[in-house]
Amino acid sequence: MSRGKLYLVPASLDFGCDTQATLQEVLPLGTLRAAAGITHWICENAKSARAYLKRIDGVVPLAAPLQAQQIQELPREVHKKGDHQAGQFDARPLLAAALAGTDIGLLSEAGMPAVADPGSSVVRAAHELGIAVVPLIGPVSLLLALAASGLNGQNFAFVGYLPQEAEARVQRIRELESLALRTGQTQLFIETPYRNAALLQALMQTLQHNTRLAVARGLTLASADIRSEPVKAWRAKPLGTDERMPAVFAIGR
Amino acid sequence: MSRGKLYLVPASLDFGCDTQATLQEVLPLGTLRAAAGITHWICENAKSARAYLKRIDGVVPLAAPLQAQQIQELPREVHKKGDHQAGQFDARPLLAAALAGTDIGLLSEAGMPAVADPGSSVVRAAHELGIAVVPLIGPVSLLLALAASGLNGQNFAFVGYLPQEAEARVQRIRELESLALRTGQTQLFIETPYRNAALLQALMQTLQHNTRLAVARGLTLASADIRSEPVKAWRAKPLGTDERMPAVFAIGR
Repeated sequence: MSRGKLYLVPASLDFGCDTQATLQEVLPLGTLRAAAGITHWICENAKSARAYLKRIDGVVPLAAPLQAQQIQELPREVHKKGDHQAGQFDARPLLAAALAGTDIGLLSEAGMPAVADPGSSVVRAAHELGIAVVPLIGPVSLLLALAASGLNGQNFAFVGYLPQEAEARVQRIRELESLALRTGQTQLFIETPYRNAALLQALMQTLQHNTRLAVARGLTLASADIRSEPVKAWRAKPLGTDERMPAVFAIGR
Repeated sequence: MSRGKLYLVPASLDFGCDTQATLQEVLPLGTLRAAAGITHWICENAKSARAYLKRIDGVVPLAAPLQAQQIQELPREVHKKGDHQAGQFDARPLLAAALAGTDIGLLSEAGMPAVADPGSSVVRAAHELGIAVVPLIGPVSLLLALAASGLNGQNFAFVGYLPQEAEARVQRIRELESLALRTGQTQLFIETPYRNAALLQALMQTLQHNTRLAVARGLTLASADIRSEPVKAWRAKPLGTDERMPAVFAIGR
């Protein structure tokens, strides 16, 4: 019996937003059609996965009705700590249906699964089991932010979240700035929206005058707002922060 | 007079391939519609830009006929050395039309402009001139490769091309492997297709037995092929290489 495939299904970036895009505007038809054909899912949260499938159904009818879709959730410690910190998490049992010949979709809450989001343990398990992995095209906030920053896109790193504790955060900002200035490698990072204001303040207080700082907020939304300037310009005219708006931060030279 | 915007317009990943995808399959309608409305372009090569616009016209009719489109090319040294190595390149003159109120599109040959490709000098100039930057959604081979690799996607770096000279290349591979194993940061890099075989051989000879190596070839094409395994498995069963196939390489733990 031939194996099913593991499809990596991207989601629109309007998770939790008041107004949501029409999916055709932000996802290729090829992605929507592939997603509509899948009946077995691995996700972070079954409820939001169902809501997203309902939106897909509005564009391309699902192969199976919503209530017949098989949805498995990733364990909570994988959400929290990430697949790699979680260490020994074995995702192979989640892929049983693919071994039996059925395609499975791995779905993120927003953007690409396994990029700045859980899921890589599932992809790794697929490779171990000889299950083909098919990444589908969709929005990735990190890359949209990087392209729109004007910072070096030929050498860059995404380092996830910075420490929450004030002193450790300042030290990490200094470390990333030094790396960016020394090597020319753009450093990207994110924060939970309600901590964006504190992070921005720490950046303004810590970074050197001529370091370039970019903040991309609400990417792909009507309210999108991308600013990229030397820190001295940020200091002269600080940014009002919206506590609900997801943001990507980047520093470089 | 209000300013025009700078749209970052992604291209399909089938540049130079024998068979080309229907654009709706790989680009959202929102991207195609925005691109079709643009009449002024900055690109690497005017001829391939025109060919791509012709494909867009097949899906959403262009606002201006092909022969009326204004197309400016980035200077050759920016292609070769990248915007940031080129140092003093001032892209502001390319944006004159936007200052006069007309939207401009920045177009890559494949994937997202300014990511692993020239263009960031143009984006930077837009920020300097107060021109809004709008990144459009499309395929990005680096991110598709990362997601499909099963390697750590919560901490990763893209470092561009490795040195061509054999000894320097081995040294760079050792450096990247050491970084990946020590910090858990996945290291992504690329090579011109006709050098992929030599790079793969150098990786097989240099990397440690348990380091994980992923190679993603022909992403988004029908012939796509993604392999991710510890180096010992690669050594036991080497990969046949296709000299024309674009590839993304990643190493991690």
